Amino acid sequence: MSEPHFFTKSNPISVASIVEHVGANCAEDVNLDQSITDIAPISEARTGHVTFLDNPKYVEDLANTEATAVLCSKRYVAKVPDGVLALEVKNPYQAFSQVSALFYPQAMSPLPFFGSEGGISQGAHIHPTAQVESGVTIEPGASVGAGAEVGAGTTIGVNAVIGQGVRIGRSCHIGANVVLQHSLVGDHVILHPGVCVGQDGFGFAMSPKGHQKVPQVGRVIIQDRVEIGANSTIDRGANKDTVIGEGTKIDNQVQIGHNVEVGRHCVLVSQVGISGSSILEDFVAIGGQSGVAGHIRIGMGAQVAAVSVAKDDLPAGGRYGGVPAKPVRQWFRELAAIKKLTEKE
Amino acid sequence: MSEPHFFTKSNPISVASIVEHVGANCAEDVNLDQSITDIAPISEARTGHVTFLDNPKYVEDLANTEATAVLCSKRYVAKVPDGVLALEVKNPYQAFSQVSALFYPQAMSPLPFFGSEGGISQGAHIHPTAQVESGVTIEPGASVGAGAEVGAGTTIGVNAVIGQGVRIGRSCHIGANVVLQHSLVGDHVILHPGVCVGQDGFGFAMSPKGHQKVPQVGRVIIQDRVEIGANSTIDRGANKDTVIGEGTKIDNQVQIGHNVEVGRHCVLVSQVGISGSSILEDFVAIGGQSGVAGHIRIGMGAQVAAVSVAKDDLPAGGRYGGVPAKPVRQWFRELAAIKKLTEKE
Amino acid sequence: MSEPHFFTKSNPISVASIVEHVGANCAEDVNLDQSITDIAPISEARTGHVTFLDNPKYVEDLANTEATAVLCSKRYVAKVPDGVLALEVKNPYQAFSQVSALFYPQAMSPLPFFGSEGGISQGAHIHPTAQVESGVTIEPGASVGAGAEVGAGTTIGVNAVIGQGVRIGRSCHIGANVVLQHSLVGDHVILHPGVCVGQDGFGFAMSPKGHQKVPQVGRVIIQDRVEIGANSTIDRGANKDTVIGEGTKIDNQVQIGHNVEVGRHCVLVSQVGISGSSILEDFVAIGGQSGVAGHIRIGMGAQVAAVSVAKDDLPAGGRYGGVPAKPVRQWFRELAAIKKLTEKE
Repeated sequence: MSEPHFFTKSNPISVASIVEHVGANCAEDVNLDQSITDIAPISEARTGHVTFLDNPKYVEDLANTEATAVLCSKRYVAKVPDGVLALEVKNPYQAFSQVSALFYPQAMSPLPFFGSEGGISQGAHIHPTAQVESGVTIEPGASVGAGAEVGAGTTIGVNAVIGQGVRIGRSCHIGANVVLQHSLVGDHVILHPGVCVGQDGFGFAMSPKGHQKVPQVGRVIIQDRVEIGANSTIDRGANKDTVIGEGTKIDNQVQIGHNVEVGRHCVLVSQVGISGSSILEDFVAIGGQSGVAGHIRIGMGAQVAAVSVAKDDLPAGGRYGGVPAKPVRQWFRELAAIKKLTEKE
Repeated sequence: MSEPHFFTKSNPISVASIVEHVGANCAEDVNLDQSITDIAPISEARTGHVTFLDNPKYVEDLANTEATAVLCSKRYVAKVPDGVLALEVKNPYQAFSQVSALFYPQAMSPLPFFGSEGGISQGAHIHPTAQVESGVTIEPGASVGAGAEVGAGTTIGVNAVIGQGVRIGRSCHIGANVVLQHSLVGDHVILHPGVCVGQDGFGFAMSPKGHQKVPQVGRVIIQDRVEIGANSTIDRGANKDTVIGEGTKIDNQVQIGHNVEVGRHCVLVSQVGISGSSILEDFVAIGGQSGVAGHIRIGMGAQVAAVSVAKDDLPAGGRYGGVPAKPVRQWFRELAAIKKLTEKE
Repeated sequence: MSEPHFFTKSNPISVASIVEHVGANCAEDVNLDQSITDIAPISEARTGHVTFLDNPKYVEDLANTEATAVLCSKRYVAKVPDGVLALEVKNPYQAFSQVSALFYPQAMSPLPFFGSEGGISQGAHIHPTAQVESGVTIEPGASVGAGAEVGAGTTIGVNAVIGQGVRIGRSCHIGANVVLQHSLVGDHVILHPGVCVGQDGFGFAMSPKGHQKVPQVGRVIIQDRVEIGANSTIDRGANKDTVIGEGTKIDNQVQIGHNVEVGRHCVLVSQVGISGSSILEDFVAIGGQSGVAGHIRIGMGAQVAAVSVAKDDLPAGGRYGGVPAKPVRQWFRELAAIKKLTEKE
């Protein structure tokens, strides 16, 4: 990494420690005493660096890497050039991530924005009826509304807004400029800057005379270990709750409508939109810029490709793509058929 | 609704009052003295609850509902199970919305974020030349710039930014972290958190030497009773005004370019983008994630389906879909023809 | 322009000055002493106004314009009605932009939000270890974190958040409610309100047991003269830097993933998403709502149409469109072939 670092790097770590930490296999004659000083991407790694190979696109870079060690799967071990240590692992990205965490333990959760002093800033606005546990950091300009509760070890970033009655668990990171209303938030939750949670869902009874606002009296429930990306928006339920299940990871600029239930360990990539009252079962993954229509159910583990639209219920476990989304093989067949049409002409 | 409530619920209301309030028809032998305690969705309603049936997807839930009363149209009255009151109305969603407003009158406009004290917080920043009428609430961290004006009964949420010279009417709710510049805002307007209004439009005179910024000297006019969802963005006009017409409702993460004129009572669902200088006549509706090209006109009452793109002018009153948008029937025919192609193979 | 103006307009300017400033040609008998008082769009221009014709859609307006003078290319000079001065230029939009800048020099960079006093507001939060050069404006509620640096002539808008260690160059405008972390920003950069830069990229090692966070230890480098639209989000690099090249212009609600390298003088229209680790070479232009897949390269000067998706590398200089993006001619052929299919039926 180039200067200046925003994170403090740990001391050098021996290859032996890395091998043990990630459970890697390596040739018997490897010098395990060598010292690793940092992580790096494969094309930029130099002596002292550990890197990884996961995406086949970067195989060519493997031949030229100057890294000291490469985490890779069995199939690529033979392609690791002489003088570079091949550390064989089943899941190179996961192993690299574990090594990254050894070098940069600070980076496993966002840093405070203003400084490292901790405590409650004099520039924060805490309502007298709010309840803040000990060991909470509240940065300048942040506000905690009437009756709100904040659990121990949580950081409320600069200018974040915790609305009346909101409850936030322990060890959470609430990013700068986040706005939380009508929400209950679990433990170890990360909300990146600009996230808006708990505003009114988009409910109007339409008529030729104009559109009548439908009261939105539900809440948003964000379970433990959820992470939500910058400027994403999650509306509260209309007459029930909007729920984001445990361990679910949501990227930037994602929109989630009222009454939506997102299961546990789902993955929603950036700019996805989930329309109101739909249900995503556990481990559903939705690619970037895709949409999910309202009032449908996506089965457990189903995957929807990027820039696709789930219009109707999708069965569990399958892979879908296109507008409207269909099994990916059918989607590819259609794209090929369209191309062929123009070749005939 | 489950605990804790973020809204105060009204006292129980008799069936008779509800029947009268929404103008429902019901069987002659109905006990109108029964008491309704809350609203609920059809699958979660229990004794004492009133619910509604609107979307045919939920007809199956009707047979099993434990609600005390169901608002539904004539066609479903016979399917309401024994022991549940059928309240026949023409527009069940509208009627349900009216009943919801009886139980939760507070929810017809967003609550203040910090507390219910009202007044001008000592933590707000009011420029000495700003003019604030009486009965205005300005929450902590909010700012009102030089020469700006705020009308009676308006709430400026925590950390909202009212730029120099901006005028806001009466009984508006400006959400937390909203940024308003170069704008004139009417009465009864609701801006949800994170909305940005009035920044420079995207105007550059491009050249191989780089791109020259074009001054954007227009304004944004937001008329009465407009509602705009979280993190939406509306650019000010380049050399005329960007206008959002009376009663128009805009969802989250919608983008509206410079010089756009949105008519009265339009509906723009989340993640829609309207390119610069286009005109939407009154009562236009655009589905989620759809786009409107620049310099075009969408006729009065036209509807564009979700994930579609209006590339050219669209006549009034029709329904359009696809990329580029065409009459929906033609769109459906094309989707069917593509599918058929692959079946031939 | 209608009242009230948010910008101060310069005094009237003679036609002679305008002709000289933009290098226009005009008929020999033109009265160059006439006075121009303002700019206006062609359909709204009146006596005293200068307007321009660039988009052929507005040719009909030319016949009826009441402007005093029209900037247009050679082909339209003969169509300028009697009594209106035709000012012939090669690039009418660029010329109009130059004239606009004469009348509204203030509008070449956003105004401060709160007032025109300048200096460091008592309502700002400056960490004692931050370094702020002279001539910096820091508005109320803005914060500058530990070790951060802000160069001379830069304005930090109301409630903007400058994170620990961030460096901002000179003559920048950082909009209200912007959040900057882990970033190095050059000179003359404009960030519009609500922009979030430098938060964690979306990196998780996924597994059936849940998803393990991958530390994101890179930075964001924003080079000189970059402009970024409201509520756009740019993630910092995972193990290298995310880079936005000199002079690049980014519209509202654009998402840029970790490790992305955007070249110099690129143009990204609103709601575009660039997936992680992709490279855009110099002068690439991407239309609104389009996507770029991860780990690909878009060659120098390539243009991707709106609502399209670059799935694989695209060669330099070409024009591409569709999902997935192909040469625009092939895209148009495919759209025509699909339409034809339904006509056969």
